[in-house]
Amino acid sequence: MIKVGIIGYGYWGPNLVRNFVNNKKCQLVCICDLDKKKLKKASKLYPNILATNNYKDIINNNKIDAVVIATPVDTHFKLALSALKSKKHVLVEKPITSSSSQAKILIEEAERQGLTLMVDHTFIYTGAVRKINELVNMKNFGDIKYYDSTRINLGLFQHDVNVLWDLAVHDLSIMSYIIKKKPIAVSANGHSRVSDEPEYAAFLSVYFDDIIAHINVNWLSPVKIRKTLVCGSKKMIVYDDLESIEKVKVYNKGIKVEKSEKEIYKTLISYRTGNMWSPKLSEIEALTIEIDHFINCILKKKKPLSSAEDGLEIVKILELANKSLRQKGKPQYLL
Amino acid sequence: MIKVGIIGYGYWGPNLVRNFVNNKKCQLVCICDLDKKKLKKASKLYPNILATNNYKDIINNNKIDAVVIATPVDTHFKLALSALKSKKHVLVEKPITSSSSQAKILIEEAERQGLTLMVDHTFIYTGAVRKINELVNMKNFGDIKYYDSTRINLGLFQHDVNVLWDLAVHDLSIMSYIIKKKPIAVSANGHSRVSDEPEYAAFLSVYFDDIIAHINVNWLSPVKIRKTLVCGSKKMIVYDDLESIEKVKVYNKGIKVEKSEKEIYKTLISYRTGNMWSPKLSEIEALTIEIDHFINCILKKKKPLSSAEDGLEIVKILELANKSLRQKGKPQYLL
Amino acid sequence: MIKVGIIGYGYWGPNLVRNFVNNKKCQLVCICDLDKKKLKKASKLYPNILATNNYKDIINNNKIDAVVIATPVDTHFKLALSALKSKKHVLVEKPITSSSSQAKILIEEAERQGLTLMVDHTFIYTGAVRKINELVNMKNFGDIKYYDSTRINLGLFQHDVNVLWDLAVHDLSIMSYIIKKKPIAVSANGHSRVSDEPEYAAFLSVYFDDIIAHINVNWLSPVKIRKTLVCGSKKMIVYDDLESIEKVKVYNKGIKVEKSEKEIYKTLISYRTGNMWSPKLSEIEALTIEIDHFINCILKKKKPLSSAEDGLEIVKILELANKSLRQKGKPQYLL
Amino acid sequence: MIKVGIIGYGYWGPNLVRNFVNNKKCQLVCICDLDKKKLKKASKLYPNILATNNYKDIINNNKIDAVVIATPVDTHFKLALSALKSKKHVLVEKPITSSSSQAKILIEEAERQGLTLMVDHTFIYTGAVRKINELVNMKNFGDIKYYDSTRINLGLFQHDVNVLWDLAVHDLSIMSYIIKKKPIAVSANGHSRVSDEPEYAAFLSVYFDDIIAHINVNWLSPVKIRKTLVCGSKKMIVYDDLESIEKVKVYNKGIKVEKSEKEIYKTLISYRTGNMWSPKLSEIEALTIEIDHFINCILKKKKPLSSAEDGLEIVKILELANKSLRQKGKPQYLL
Repeated sequence: MIKVGIIGYGYWGPNLVRNFVNNKKCQLVCICDLDKKKLKKASKLYPNILATNNYKDIINNNKIDAVVIATPVDTHFKLALSALKSKKHVLVEKPITSSSSQAKILIEEAERQGLTLMVDHTFIYTGAVRKINELVNMKNFGDIKYYDSTRINLGLFQHDVNVLWDLAVHDLSIMSYIIKKKPIAVSANGHSRVSDEPEYAAFLSVYFDDIIAHINVNWLSPVKIRKTLVCGSKKMIVYDDLESIEKVKVYNKGIKVEKSEKEIYKTLISYRTGNMWSPKLSEIEALTIEIDHFINCILKKKKPLSSAEDGLEIVKILELANKSLRQKGKPQYLL
Repeated sequence: MIKVGIIGYGYWGPNLVRNFVNNKKCQLVCICDLDKKKLKKASKLYPNILATNNYKDIINNNKIDAVVIATPVDTHFKLALSALKSKKHVLVEKPITSSSSQAKILIEEAERQGLTLMVDHTFIYTGAVRKINELVNMKNFGDIKYYDSTRINLGLFQHDVNVLWDLAVHDLSIMSYIIKKKPIAVSANGHSRVSDEPEYAAFLSVYFDDIIAHINVNWLSPVKIRKTLVCGSKKMIVYDDLESIEKVKVYNKGIKVEKSEKEIYKTLISYRTGNMWSPKLSEIEALTIEIDHFINCILKKKKPLSSAEDGLEIVKILELANKSLRQKGKPQYLL
Repeated sequence: MIKVGIIGYGYWGPNLVRNFVNNKKCQLVCICDLDKKKLKKASKLYPNILATNNYKDIINNNKIDAVVIATPVDTHFKLALSALKSKKHVLVEKPITSSSSQAKILIEEAERQGLTLMVDHTFIYTGAVRKINELVNMKNFGDIKYYDSTRINLGLFQHDVNVLWDLAVHDLSIMSYIIKKKPIAVSANGHSRVSDEPEYAAFLSVYFDDIIAHINVNWLSPVKIRKTLVCGSKKMIVYDDLESIEKVKVYNKGIKVEKSEKEIYKTLISYRTGNMWSPKLSEIEALTIEIDHFINCILKKKKPLSSAEDGLEIVKILELANKSLRQKGKPQYLL
Repeated sequence: MIKVGIIGYGYWGPNLVRNFVNNKKCQLVCICDLDKKKLKKASKLYPNILATNNYKDIINNNKIDAVVIATPVDTHFKLALSALKSKKHVLVEKPITSSSSQAKILIEEAERQGLTLMVDHTFIYTGAVRKINELVNMKNFGDIKYYDSTRINLGLFQHDVNVLWDLAVHDLSIMSYIIKKKPIAVSANGHSRVSDEPEYAAFLSVYFDDIIAHINVNWLSPVKIRKTLVCGSKKMIVYDDLESIEKVKVYNKGIKVEKSEKEIYKTLISYRTGNMWSPKLSEIEALTIEIDHFINCILKKKKPLSSAEDGLEIVKILELANKSLRQKGKPQYLL
């Protein structure tokens, strides 16, 4: 029975707590938050779980095997490092850290200690994204051509990070999970309302060898859109996360290219249209699957699907995207 | 009575012909196309209009006052120049020319001769775009913050121009008409299926002093999307050209910012939500209005709403966008 | 080469004319309409086709083999009868006649003369309805349980017939084509704005042995809806005629019933959900197929898919529906 | 401080409990359910509230002022009557009872004792329905012409009541709240899968003096629809409960009728189209408002908005609808 402590009972914390409580392979023993009101709420709902406003009560508790960190990004590094140093497995909210150098230090520490270090890229555990991954890997999908995602709504302005670090991180984790290749370069454009404020809107392109990904994120949109296109040479997928049932649609559509040396280019390409289908998706909550996966990785010493290395990859992209953003789209290369 | 000749009876030509025939201030006297099948079709529908496969029959016809050019882009310059030199007013399809230097020569020639030179930016004559322009100019709209447009579908691959020159030109004309400011820089990213092919997908950012425009165009999308957000500091507009009735929606939504020196940033911004409304739009066909405007500009020697200078502006942006595209988003500055 | 004359060049006439002109097995020789303006329009577009405002010029023309009647309903009987008596095949707009007794007389006359008498139930020739019919007849669809259709919009008030005769006739023709059974009874409810006016809204139920059909039609709806559910015991279809591409969706959903004597009823029924798919539909215009079918029926002396008998069946339902309407839904039985 | 006991902790019970716990004018002291598992769940969440599987523990508890009944319909009468006899105020789930005669007995008992007896017609406390009621009562709405609602989905088959008693009751409560007139007659059609089963689909028309209401309910639909049209002579409302934000849309559309004695009818009616707007709705949970209203009615001895008399009215309609259903739509008159 893995004993777990959670640091951070804010927006996402209650979901984590509820899912750890319901997982039978582990026991949630302590919740920590600086806000005493939130702690009271937690205590009322879970009278048998310790509540503390000092995270060291978790770090120093020898009975605790694993720590979940659901605090603001700029505290991830410090909390995760001290947990790892106290020989505890760690699940940390996305993005894993504020910088790639921090992520590297955590990865080294976890390796040295033989501990599981996992990042909470929730989306890759949803029924929709798992199904898309399955489809994309089938032969009849062909090669991925592009990934194009729009994730916009009237969102809370963050004072410390821009919209890329808040919203694009979701798409980057999905993109990374599906595409399974190393990106080569990024280019980002964006806008702030006033010059020293974080960007509320950003448009990020990620170049791969023969694929392009484009991500449109915005905190200042009158309508909510969560729409992703994944286009293959033989099939195309539309993933609309706001649809209640038919979130994923697969189109047997595209273009046919026939080679010919003499004919001019235009005449050789023709449309191909066919059926559309919408596969049934698993309805199990993503977090339930993810937490079970975290516990299993600890028990079986497996690499998590959303490993710290995946988290590092995404932080690297975000760092370069920020650089590009300040230079109006100037491309930045990943080594 | 202005006498008109049309060169090009392809995709758009029949719409032009139908509208010129119905306009009472002018008379369509000649249609020219290289394709004899198309000419036959035209003759069957309009037995009283001359049909020719030699454009010089129009250029050299002294009775013709105005020439409409609806041919492939790379022929615009030659045809428009010879029409202007023969002292004919000219309406030319978008984009006005293949290069900004060509557009400049046409502008100079038209000025020298005192002729009307207009570019067919049809969208700015639609009920939807005219209403948006009206709304954006009202005080209660506030300042424009961004223009964000998606114009994608399974479209015919062009062999000579990329998707920017084919589709983004529509958004650039709308953007330019609404924003009424000079752009500063552009950054574009995109993708081709094979290296020497024109880009089928492109993502273009246009920087203004305190506004950003973003345009997502794609010939290889399983679904058709025509959705534009125009966001002001007080109101926000969603323009969905695929909606049959409620194409334009105005949201009385946004964020409220209250200034305070001591409080941290986050707490000072709050959501503001309110009613949405969808104004009734004029249902007159855009081309009907545009052609009437062209005739009126000739008769009253007025500057057209979609002037050759507007056409030049957009060709400049497209030229720089192409440059940026080949350099993975490297920004290009407009003087 | 079948020679054809058309009586009525109003709303639907131009579509008929265009399609007859394009069909290579026949020749349209004469168009008749009382309105001289409409005739002029026709003549301008088709200078080689005779135009007349006297329908007898068609009836008495010995060279004409077939007559198409696209006039108001109350003239169908007289025109069709005189055409049949002049030994001409007849295609008549829906509904076939104003009363079932009239339809019977036409049917007898056509039989006596060995002529083709067909009613223009256009919908059954659409790609969507033909696909639905195909799907419903597959084993894996199970038995049809219900047909439920909503066909509402802000429509032109008719002064002579109510909304059932104007709009429900479409659904009755689709229903009849798909269900292939004799209805037993009808019940209809409806509303007029003032007592002596035709009903602008009506709700019609048609009872079959083990199927129910329900049709909601309305001329006074702020939004346009064209949505039909066809539910089988194993699969369910949603047909939305306003969707541009995915008009037909097939749901592999339903309920599972397991029999058990002891268990209470509730626990034995469980949901069954599965994939959805949207088949590719033929994009050929319904009227093109229908007119070709009409000509083929004449040439090969076949019974049309939308025969006069089918037309009669629907008029019978409409007559009884009107009776029921006046008695607030009192059921009326078909023999 | 009103002391409350709740009988029934099934589907709806937890929502009631949560809202009573959060209301500051009352105290929830006891929860009763026959199912011990459910009781355990309740006890875990609310350790300070008594849990019992004997409803008499609530009825006989002298400290309890008000009883909430959230049990199957056929137990409402017995439980409500015994609560009233024990001098307790009662809030009972919809429909109030299984028969109108039962409802009358409860109403008499409540009156005799001077107790509040309220029925849980939750929908009339939603932001959407309250806004619609407000709009319908404004002069510029004109007179209500019709109420047309579709409430269908793949729903749990009930073994004791048909779909009218399960789903139409919602629309009847909304209709009754908005229309504020006495209905004259009802006609209902429907279908069962096998002869002795409750109807899974039903189509109900309710006749008022100069208004018609139509309600389409179905447990066997592949798609979920919750769409209601409320049409006035000057404005029209579309209420789509599945829209997350713009649930209510008001259309300034309709027809214009100009009177003229000589002209024929058809020419005098013309379309009128105008703007559409979607008002901002209150986001307070309906149950929160409703429970507060219940407590206030007790404290101030007011008649509830959803009074037992309203509940009786709806049960009367349902009884007659069932009668009509068995006679294929034969109208049934309300005295």
